Amino acid sequence: MLRVNKERFFEDLDSLAKIGRTLDEGVTRLALSETDLEARGWFKARAEEAGLKFHQDGAGNISAILPAKNPRAKTLLAGSHLDSVPNGGRFDGVLGVVSALEALRTIKEADLDLEFHLEAISFTDEEGTWLGLLGSRAFAGLLTSKDLKLERGVAKAFDQALSQAGFSSETLLSTGRDPTQYAGFIEAHIEQGSRLESAKLSIGLVTNIVGVRWYWLRFTGESAHAGTQPMAQRSDALWGACAFIDSAKDLVQNRLSPGVSNFGQLHVKPGVFNIVPAEVELAMEIRHTATESLDEMEQALFKLAEECAKTYHLTVERRQVNEISPAHMDEHMIQTIEHATNQLELKHTRLVSFAFHDTQSMSAIMPSVLYFVPSVNGISHNPKEFTNSEDMKNCANVMLHAILAFQ
Amino acid sequence: MLRVNKERFFEDLDSLAKIGRTLDEGVTRLALSETDLEARGWFKARAEEAGLKFHQDGAGNISAILPAKNPRAKTLLAGSHLDSVPNGGRFDGVLGVVSALEALRTIKEADLDLEFHLEAISFTDEEGTWLGLLGSRAFAGLLTSKDLKLERGVAKAFDQALSQAGFSSETLLSTGRDPTQYAGFIEAHIEQGSRLESAKLSIGLVTNIVGVRWYWLRFTGESAHAGTQPMAQRSDALWGACAFIDSAKDLVQNRLSPGVSNFGQLHVKPGVFNIVPAEVELAMEIRHTATESLDEMEQALFKLAEECAKTYHLTVERRQVNEISPAHMDEHMIQTIEHATNQLELKHTRLVSFAFHDTQSMSAIMPSVLYFVPSVNGISHNPKEFTNSEDMKNCANVMLHAILAFQ
Repeated sequence: MLRVNKERFFEDLDSLAKIGRTLDEGVTRLALSETDLEARGWFKARAEEAGLKFHQDGAGNISAILPAKNPRAKTLLAGSHLDSVPNGGRFDGVLGVVSALEALRTIKEADLDLEFHLEAISFTDEEGTWLGLLGSRAFAGLLTSKDLKLERGVAKAFDQALSQAGFSSETLLSTGRDPTQYAGFIEAHIEQGSRLESAKLSIGLVTNIVGVRWYWLRFTGESAHAGTQPMAQRSDALWGACAFIDSAKDLVQNRLSPGVSNFGQLHVKPGVFNIVPAEVELAMEIRHTATESLDEMEQALFKLAEECAKTYHLTVERRQVNEISPAHMDEHMIQTIEHATNQLELKHTRLVSFAFHDTQSMSAIMPSVLYFVPSVNGISHNPKEFTNSEDMKNCANVMLHAILAFQ
Repeated sequence: MLRVNKERFFEDLDSLAKIGRTLDEGVTRLALSETDLEARGWFKARAEEAGLKFHQDGAGNISAILPAKNPRAKTLLAGSHLDSVPNGGRFDGVLGVVSALEALRTIKEADLDLEFHLEAISFTDEEGTWLGLLGSRAFAGLLTSKDLKLERGVAKAFDQALSQAGFSSETLLSTGRDPTQYAGFIEAHIEQGSRLESAKLSIGLVTNIVGVRWYWLRFTGESAHAGTQPMAQRSDALWGACAFIDSAKDLVQNRLSPGVSNFGQLHVKPGVFNIVPAEVELAMEIRHTATESLDEMEQALFKLAEECAKTYHLTVERRQVNEISPAHMDEHMIQTIEHATNQLELKHTRLVSFAFHDTQSMSAIMPSVLYFVPSVNGISHNPKEFTNSEDMKNCANVMLHAILAFQ
């Protein structure tokens, strides 16, 4: 049975781990940064070296293409992303891109003529340096000019980064592909959780992906001299924000599970030792499997934020800055992956993804599927992220056989 | 009875309010910034215009001097500071500097020959843009090279700001004056609290000033993917920091009063929506009237921080970055101010200052005193800071008559 070239595959993963490598062996390849551009150059060189056609679209999504003999064939798309979070792990995204690339190279070397053009893709800014799933949303025609209106300050840096990489808002918004040309999409990814490892399984077939919403909450009080303003008379914005964070984590765990939340950033103004904080801006993320559940979470958390604000004589405002809808995977596509894992005699299960992925965008315009391989200890977005070499190899071979089995 | 020129005095206060004025009518004159340098230029021009001698030392402390006829006379020093916190009020510090300047002008115009040289001074960086009480500590010879070892990043900006203004670490450390040349120090300041206003009093005679300590607390957990890492398994540094802030404010109010605390700044790493915070750096300030009480506060708060860290599977480290000792005012100097307020028929009281002031440095090397005029609603370090014109005028006249009565 056909297998990928594992030496070449591992060598490629190693090469990518060096681009943007951090002191503690993680990687920092923020979308459109110099290291991200270096990774794109690397991908292009590897694609051309393998005799594949390189293509880049107006959102900076980069592809290696293996055409079928039939020019009117549809395209089967596979891939993930090469960008990372700050000091993230070296497998997140990369494993899916390199698995797709390696599958195409293996098929080309075996001189197989399939019924579909094959396209291995790396999407721009999956991680949200600027706007999560940026490239895949642009690809799917889901991106609007409203989405591109970023915060002041960030907006300027984004324009600059886009333009340095050769893109613009206009190219981003006009890059949507024609869905009728595509037969389906397959993404492989590390699990970023510990369910597969705990159950001693090799492959996780994702049935649906959680939706995600991002908000900035602004708590506003009154700045005051930290020595002379009696503590009982303060309107300390940080007190209110902390009380909210403290209660919100309990509310989510006790009442809104399996929904999850995160407070990833907090800015204090004016931000000096001897002044009572007048303003806190708090980044809040919520995830849940259905739109109604997200609505319910949102409502419960905002109510709590208002209660905390009131307790500390503050006001609180909210501003949603991002939304990714929950997504369902295509049953026929799931079965295609299932077939491949069975052929390779790998143990598998079906599960929900709590991480958002480019598949979410693709599933809006074509039959799509996502599968996972195990993450050691479930660690991800962290330099300690790890996946065993056996699981990495399985990842590429499942990709190969899913493509071969796809009809 | 002699009075200051109130038109000139108010005009000067108005002029200074325009230097670094913010959109909401506050002022931002961070020490050594362009606006601070502009205020220094303004002071120099006003001093020279009045026929006073201008002097600047190696710490950037600027003075207007009115010499006595006797060249061997000691100097009576009076003043405060012209720098501000970010978007602070227009009276903090300024009122004391302009009261001293106006008193000297009035005495010169009245052609009085006193037993002391008179020096009206504005100290550098009272507010702690770089290091609180920087100029007065340098003046008093209390500054050490250890004090000047700032955080990386800040250190470079500090060196740059110093050098642009014409100073250096060397000039700062070698600027200590000879205490035997000074007879005493008087500082006038707004109360920054509401005790005088509530009691309908015009002048507050400070008997002692609280000591202040600044710390950075670093809570360290583990970054993780905010979707896939189950909430119950996180080591979220922000959760620990928030639990600490929440409990610490209660501990201080219930058990450590009249000590007060503030958490004025908080930095989250890595600081993005979809990653569980791995690290939080928290700025903590404590104030209390005695060294032993500060020790007790420190101990109780660190113990609490360690408990909170443990609860959330974090570690916590601490680093003290500043210390200002509690200070006692000189009884003879207090009586001198008391005498002046009685002459002017102003109601007064004795009280403790919860704000630190340049007087703290001066009291280490010469008999010193600090007096307050009321702040409307006690608001300070805020654009809404306000003092009524009657109280401003009283401030300058008390300064004038305290100088005239000083022996």
